[in-house]
Amino acid sequence: MGLLDYFRNSQPKGTANVAKERLQILVAHDRAERHRPSYLPKLQREILDVIRKYVDVDMNAVSVNYEQEESHEVLELNIILPDTVRNMM
Amino acid sequence: MGLLDYFRNSQPKGTANVAKERLQILVAHDRAERHRPSYLPKLQREILDVIRKYVDVDMNAVSVNYEQEESHEVLELNIILPDTVRNMM
Repeated sequence: MGLLDYFRNSQPKGTANVAKERLQILVAHDRAERHRPSYLPKLQREILDVIRKYVDVDMNAVSVNYEQEESHEVLELNIILPDTVRNMM
Repeated sequence: MGLLDYFRNSQPKGTANVAKERLQILVAHDRAERHRPSYLPKLQREILDVIRKYVDVDMNAVSVNYEQEESHEVLELNIILPDTVRNMM
């Protein structure tokens, strides 16, 4: 299954007629050393700061999911973007 | 299928005995306005800059995949991290 299929399948149902701007960011880390502290929570804040240079992000419209296993961790950010997007390019 | 399953399935085969540090970043954007220029290529550079604050990244060990459809685009960064990781925390 390709990446595009994954994201297509993960789209919420019942919103087909509403064109929403949506941004999903996934960061997956396979860790060789298991005892080292994770930097993903810090990375999360900095990635959000980068994104906010390009688009208005309402922090209430950001959902964060973080899963950690012994040697693997995944950070997921889901952002619903406002209808009017700031264009800074 | 959960996120962890997706990443587990996407791991390269034949490297089971070598514990490699690996970082995968996916950015998926559902665009309501199709004609607006994409900011994902710029975002890619800035996200890499953020990651390099935490770990040494050999730019030769970064593979980039970018897929664009009419109203959907996905940016994928795969980074093999060096065995010795800088600890800046």
